[in-house]
Amino acid sequence: MNPTITAFERSPDRGKGLARDMRVRWALEETGQSYDVRLVSFEAMKQPAHLALHPFGQIPTYEEGDLVLFESGAIVLHVAEHRAGLLPDDANARARAIAWMFAALNTVEPPILELVTAKILEGDKPWAAERLPLVKDRIRNRLQQLSDRLGDAGWLDGAFSAGDLMMVHALLRLKPSGILDEYPNLSAYVARGEARPAYRRAFDAQWTVFAAASSAGSP
Amino acid sequence: MNPTITAFERSPDRGKGLARDMRVRWALEETGQSYDVRLVSFEAMKQPAHLALHPFGQIPTYEEGDLVLFESGAIVLHVAEHRAGLLPDDANARARAIAWMFAALNTVEPPILELVTAKILEGDKPWAAERLPLVKDRIRNRLQQLSDRLGDAGWLDGAFSAGDLMMVHALLRLKPSGILDEYPNLSAYVARGEARPAYRRAFDAQWTVFAAASSAGSP
Repeated sequence: MNPTITAFERSPDRGKGLARDMRVRWALEETGQSYDVRLVSFEAMKQPAHLALHPFGQIPTYEEGDLVLFESGAIVLHVAEHRAGLLPDDANARARAIAWMFAALNTVEPPILELVTAKILEGDKPWAAERLPLVKDRIRNRLQQLSDRLGDAGWLDGAFSAGDLMMVHALLRLKPSGILDEYPNLSAYVARGEARPAYRRAFDAQWTVFAAASSAGSP
Repeated sequence: MNPTITAFERSPDRGKGLARDMRVRWALEETGQSYDVRLVSFEAMKQPAHLALHPFGQIPTYEEGDLVLFESGAIVLHVAEHRAGLLPDDANARARAIAWMFAALNTVEPPILELVTAKILEGDKPWAAERLPLVKDRIRNRLQQLSDRLGDAGWLDGAFSAGDLMMVHALLRLKPSGILDEYPNLSAYVARGEARPAYRRAFDAQWTVFAAASSAGSP
């Protein structure tokens, strides 16, 4: 029986693959696990039926038999622990790959989300123009450190892992800002992630959902 | 052989137990694992020797034989996987406890860190007073959802787990703001965490470090 994940009925990123269901789709594709998708509207996400699955009213969720999970990091880790392809066999290397998952979500992503907040939720505030460079510089601090660590390696710690998957996806959100291009090795790293066949399949799947919702008309 | 963790030589929170070594100390105490601590100065944290352990130049790190880990979430998960006391035996309950770890770090903590940033890094900016209420309201959105899910339960999902440990510690940072008191069940939840003997032992250990550094004088 396939696991079922949830995704936006109409992704706010207009099919750019930045929503967090992408992380789960990508992980499932890397491990060759087929899955079903239940689409959820913005309205339905805040209703009791969905809140029972996800206390913060977001996507993705993951249902597999009696198990219900939320948080893309937890879902990707669950998939990675149960199927081959996302974590190394060696115990220490496995722990380090998981550390990179946490680094992506708790160290690299938060300043990037501050930029999203600054643009979307505070873009019309009187301080927006003056504050934006501060927010961007905090991102640059992190990216410089990440760039230094990556160096000219292909992935963060040996073979591609769930840590790279989470990091690449966290960084993808920076593409429109141009900041990523200031770090050529990080830009190439993200491009390597995007070039993986499993990423392409996941991207195409979420794009198909968005395109179908758009052609179905308003809103 | 004890694992070795790193902690601030002089914690910027002045011994309030808000630094992330507390999470690791608390987890080790819950599992009855003794440990050694190597103190690191702000200057040393940015030097190559420490950056080799922690690419983002922070604490804590965790060294155990050949294994070096960074990110408090990854370290706590590693400890929880190898010693009893922080994760349930049932596979599904275990996966859900890990989901709460990720929720603490990636959904609840980021808006709280925005408040820290707003106060410490942008407290002197002309927009500080007008912006602060927006930041606080974003925290309230999350806390209301968390409060609704917790209800009158003691812990987030059955027995105390690593998920509660991370959530309680993420919420602790809100205490001075008064926001936590707006959600009596969350305030009581945090107090339950702080009352655990393992928490007390961890708190006292970090306090002892801070007190010793302070009595040693400047800077």
